[in-house]
Amino acid sequence: MKRVVAFVLSLSILLSLPATAVRADEGMWTFDNPPLKQWKERYNFEPTKEWLDHVRLASVRLQDGGSGSFVSVNGLVMTNQHVAGGQLAKLSTKERDLVKDGFYARTNAEELKCPDLEINVLVSYEDVTARVQGAVKANASDKEANEQRKAAMAAIEKESTETTKLKSDVVTLYSGGEYWVYRYKKYTDVRLVFAPEEQIAYYGGDYDNFTFPRHDLDVTFLRVYENNQPARTEHFFKWSAKGPSDGEFVVASGNPGTTNRLLTNAQLQYQRDLGNPLQMQVLSSRRDALSRFAAAGAEQARRANSTRRSLENSIKRLESQQAGLLNPRLFGKKEAEEKALRAAIAANPEWQQAYGSAWDQVAKAYGGLPKYAKRIAFSSIATPSRLGSLASTLVRYAEEIRKPNASRYDEFRDARLEALKVNLFSPAPIYPDLEEAALAAWLEEGQKTLGNDDPFIRAALAGATPAQVARQVVTGTKLTDVAVRKSLFEGGADAIAKSDDPLIALARRIEPVYRELRAWSEENIQSVDASAGQRIAKSRFAAYGKTAAPDATFTLRLSYGAVKGYSEDTTLVPFKTTFYGLYDRAESFGEKPPFDLPARYREGRNKLDLSTPLNFVYTADTIGGNSGSPVVNRNAEIVGLNFDSNLQKLPNRYVYVDDEEGGRAVAVHSMAIIEALRKLYGAEKLAEEITGAR
Amino acid sequence: MKRVVAFVLSLSILLSLPATAVRADEGMWTFDNPPLKQWKERYNFEPTKEWLDHVRLASVRLQDGGSGSFVSVNGLVMTNQHVAGGQLAKLSTKERDLVKDGFYARTNAEELKCPDLEINVLVSYEDVTARVQGAVKANASDKEANEQRKAAMAAIEKESTETTKLKSDVVTLYSGGEYWVYRYKKYTDVRLVFAPEEQIAYYGGDYDNFTFPRHDLDVTFLRVYENNQPARTEHFFKWSAKGPSDGEFVVASGNPGTTNRLLTNAQLQYQRDLGNPLQMQVLSSRRDALSRFAAAGAEQARRANSTRRSLENSIKRLESQQAGLLNPRLFGKKEAEEKALRAAIAANPEWQQAYGSAWDQVAKAYGGLPKYAKRIAFSSIATPSRLGSLASTLVRYAEEIRKPNASRYDEFRDARLEALKVNLFSPAPIYPDLEEAALAAWLEEGQKTLGNDDPFIRAALAGATPAQVARQVVTGTKLTDVAVRKSLFEGGADAIAKSDDPLIALARRIEPVYRELRAWSEENIQSVDASAGQRIAKSRFAAYGKTAAPDATFTLRLSYGAVKGYSEDTTLVPFKTTFYGLYDRAESFGEKPPFDLPARYREGRNKLDLSTPLNFVYTADTIGGNSGSPVVNRNAEIVGLNFDSNLQKLPNRYVYVDDEEGGRAVAVHSMAIIEALRKLYGAEKLAEEITGAR
Repeated sequence: MKRVVAFVLSLSILLSLPATAVRADEGMWTFDNPPLKQWKERYNFEPTKEWLDHVRLASVRLQDGGSGSFVSVNGLVMTNQHVAGGQLAKLSTKERDLVKDGFYARTNAEELKCPDLEINVLVSYEDVTARVQGAVKANASDKEANEQRKAAMAAIEKESTETTKLKSDVVTLYSGGEYWVYRYKKYTDVRLVFAPEEQIAYYGGDYDNFTFPRHDLDVTFLRVYENNQPARTEHFFKWSAKGPSDGEFVVASGNPGTTNRLLTNAQLQYQRDLGNPLQMQVLSSRRDALSRFAAAGAEQARRANSTRRSLENSIKRLESQQAGLLNPRLFGKKEAEEKALRAAIAANPEWQQAYGSAWDQVAKAYGGLPKYAKRIAFSSIATPSRLGSLASTLVRYAEEIRKPNASRYDEFRDARLEALKVNLFSPAPIYPDLEEAALAAWLEEGQKTLGNDDPFIRAALAGATPAQVARQVVTGTKLTDVAVRKSLFEGGADAIAKSDDPLIALARRIEPVYRELRAWSEENIQSVDASAGQRIAKSRFAAYGKTAAPDATFTLRLSYGAVKGYSEDTTLVPFKTTFYGLYDRAESFGEKPPFDLPARYREGRNKLDLSTPLNFVYTADTIGGNSGSPVVNRNAEIVGLNFDSNLQKLPNRYVYVDDEEGGRAVAVHSMAIIEALRKLYGAEKLAEEITGAR
Repeated sequence: MKRVVAFVLSLSILLSLPATAVRADEGMWTFDNPPLKQWKERYNFEPTKEWLDHVRLASVRLQDGGSGSFVSVNGLVMTNQHVAGGQLAKLSTKERDLVKDGFYARTNAEELKCPDLEINVLVSYEDVTARVQGAVKANASDKEANEQRKAAMAAIEKESTETTKLKSDVVTLYSGGEYWVYRYKKYTDVRLVFAPEEQIAYYGGDYDNFTFPRHDLDVTFLRVYENNQPARTEHFFKWSAKGPSDGEFVVASGNPGTTNRLLTNAQLQYQRDLGNPLQMQVLSSRRDALSRFAAAGAEQARRANSTRRSLENSIKRLESQQAGLLNPRLFGKKEAEEKALRAAIAANPEWQQAYGSAWDQVAKAYGGLPKYAKRIAFSSIATPSRLGSLASTLVRYAEEIRKPNASRYDEFRDARLEALKVNLFSPAPIYPDLEEAALAAWLEEGQKTLGNDDPFIRAALAGATPAQVARQVVTGTKLTDVAVRKSLFEGGADAIAKSDDPLIALARRIEPVYRELRAWSEENIQSVDASAGQRIAKSRFAAYGKTAAPDATFTLRLSYGAVKGYSEDTTLVPFKTTFYGLYDRAESFGEKPPFDLPARYREGRNKLDLSTPLNFVYTADTIGGNSGSPVVNRNAEIVGLNFDSNLQKLPNRYVYVDDEEGGRAVAVHSMAIIEALRKLYGAEKLAEEITGAR
């Protein structure tokens, strides 16, 4: 039985609220616009500017796709094991599996350098809305306007980078209602300090993922270095000795990835009817390919594990999000919201003139998307394969770098090239057997979906079978060698053109298809998204004021709420679990995987105080990307480490799931981390660094 | 969020099965017709006749409304604390609260005699269908047929009682498709040996009731005596040292109370639209009255506790049952079933002639019920009040006993008089303050529902207010004195007529109303139920054969299935819990009631092996009345003690909820009982009696 069915039904309750109300604890707020009114009214909390600055500067973004925080003055970073999982896998070998067995460096010298992890701290930000929007010439078409805005954004990023020496990104907020330049201090020497066994970080596996009660010690410690020394991080979070109490106000400071709460009905309908099912096909076919590969043996399973876990996570999340969209009441609510906004706009002739046509413009644009959607989804070899991604990037870079900065694809703007090189030249291991299997399965799925006459399939297969192509390019390529990649990168278009690497040849063949589809998409979808989105955003500001937070953009946000249990079915779910619960679950399943315990836990149970809290839930509005967010109390002390949401919360990509609905963020309790470090891992020194706040 | 919503939706899965299929593990089977085929096919289990006889003779029925079993040769009976709860309350005083504090008799001499508990063992049974059905004269009206059948049943019971000296009940099975006489050995000297604190027997209270995972030590031990000595019970269950393993075949042998799976659509519709809502009003108003009374203080709460708990249990169960009926798919399935059966009958002219009109007859009869339903529900003072029940019984008895045995109300047949006297002359305490509050609230609810012109209200109130009437009769009555009740019982109609006891006077005033309504009901509903029910039962036998078990009738049945967890939402629920889980739940709620622990458990946790299993689930088809049923393995050893169902299972009053739907019976694990007795209660002697099988 799927609770999600009950959930989407019960959304009817929240659907009765007025369209414009910001509900309790809703919102992923930018630091320039924290929800001070709500904090004051609901929690009697009034942070100082210093508090806000401190929280921001002690919070970090991991470019692998998660959040973290500084927890000592010596550059110690806390995040989730599953956020660090990619680096753990890259640091692992057949002989030393850091994912499975965990890791602890007793000295700085033992810390392991992550192959390609970049960590960012948001140092400053600035509103550049006027400049970006002002760059659009009068009477520009949507396509031209899109190009003009992009050129302005590229120029702002380049100037800011040169002036401040900080990594500078222009961020689009409120669907284009605002543009901000965010400037980051960047750490690229990041070393692994501690990781637990995956089996305790991800206890219960895919079954327990997105559920509560939960029993995961999903924590990893990293350390940022500068000049080969631990960086001195003045802004770090102190540790709460007791963790959160029931009902306590807490803040999660992190980088939520994507929400789509401001989408128009046409966009939502597209997601529901085609976008999400297509995405599910992409994820499922990749997951299935990796499962088949992993079934061949333990080492194969190890190689596939990290990506497979990530795919399973995405699939489970997508299922619940889609269930939300398929709920007629939720969708009806979204329709009612849009109708109300459009009516408010129509009632004011000036507004109607400026914004009134935006919704129909979006609907028209998305009406054209189904024809291209499958092609866009499958016309790439970068999605399933690391080697495919490297080859495509090298081929594309050689072309893009010849253009002026303002005209390039976003990801090749000057300000982004540093990050690009970190990725391209990463020494992380590449497994040809895994690459071949994943690429072959991907091309098969593409062939099945697009047909043999499709331009991508024709270019990619060139008459051969998917298996033959995958075998040929993976066996023949030299791109596993970082030096070869550097040479092609530096050799430019000429080197790419002359390369006889079969994978480069494949990337060259499919590049025109990719560019055609991207051009179509930028002209027909992105331009409209930007143009109409901006007008709709302005219409919302006009009708309701700036009362809501912008959709998530994998940039730093403040989420907040209360530590609080909830009711489920006819009983209560407490706000926390304890180590007792972990041992109950393991015993109750007879330690059948994925409910088995690492040996350290089985043998060490008598060392633990089992009443120590393990995980807890709280009402904050978070989403994927918030993994690893510090959960802090009003003294800015760490009380927990965000790592998940419960199932009830998952439709929050499209609509905020509030307290009464039982939607909750899930965190590791601060006491559990210290208890385990001290009693099970002999990591007294690390525990001391955290709690002693040295 | 209510999972029951998800549940009733997901019933769509089971609804796709053919109408006539008996699903896996379905059925509460009579001992004359055990599901040997299913046991053999599904579990490769072929019991001997001795096995079946032994299980039957070691199983008992508690007339308080539950099941139990002999677990030693010395008359030791195991049941649930909540089944024995009424007796525990009756044995309690303000100073000695056996419900709250539990009880353990270290010697036989310390065992406490229950005031009015009768325990039955099914010694033999005999098919009397031919005689009962044959008693109906040709061309008898339904009313006459009903009377003729009842007269036959009374005669059979009387003969059997006189011949065998055994308590003999004629049981109606398959809605009248079969009649059997069941003969019981009867124990009326029943003594309390052990009960745990209610807080551990009912851990989590109403919240956790009907949920799983669960953590209840819902056990009580009694002992039957004969001639003031522990009875020698040759047939008793031996104890399994290990309890059940995952997937193991088990049998629950107990007395399920009521199922309604053979109801016609018209009857179900009546239940859904009027019967259940009315029942909910009755239960809720009584519960609310007791809650108000209990709020006055600890002693008041103690006095109200037992009944209140029982009402809460009924309310929670009724909510889920009603949710099942309100599910259009479930109802549609029931409609499809009936349509298929009627079509099969219509296809055979002989069948059509004999049975074809039965459904319409039922529909017509139930069409008349709404007019009387509220009156029938509220025109009684026995429902809310023990004193009211005593007075009504005395008044009614005096009238009935003057009639020939065959013509009396069922409950006054000669064969039932012994049980009647046990009840009437019970020395159990009666609390006038509680009686007055409950009666006043009941009359108020009745007045509100029926109006002042209603015959019952006019007779009951006689112009006064409900509070005045309740005050007057409870203050003035002498029925709290057993001797007074005996005197009125023996005095017959004359004594009743002359009594100036105000409660007897009230009972006399309302008796004509009661008799009018009962006469209407017997003539218009029960007669039709019996007549049409019998024809429908025969039509089922004709069309499908005797493939299904009869509806539950609070007589001994065999339920069976596998010990097995299930999936819920996206994760798995293991088949068992452990003491770890109990401590997790207590800690996670900070021991906030009803999740607090008895002091013995809080202080004694280090004495326990926390990995000891506490509760488990299995797939057997059970329902209220099965509480206290022994759960035995194929060696007829006790592996558990049935005490509940999970929420998913509750609509099984109307439709079997199968394995795949997650419907489960819930039992106390045999190991938990021994672990607690030995480690926490110092009840080594009792543990030895059970496990040593002395």
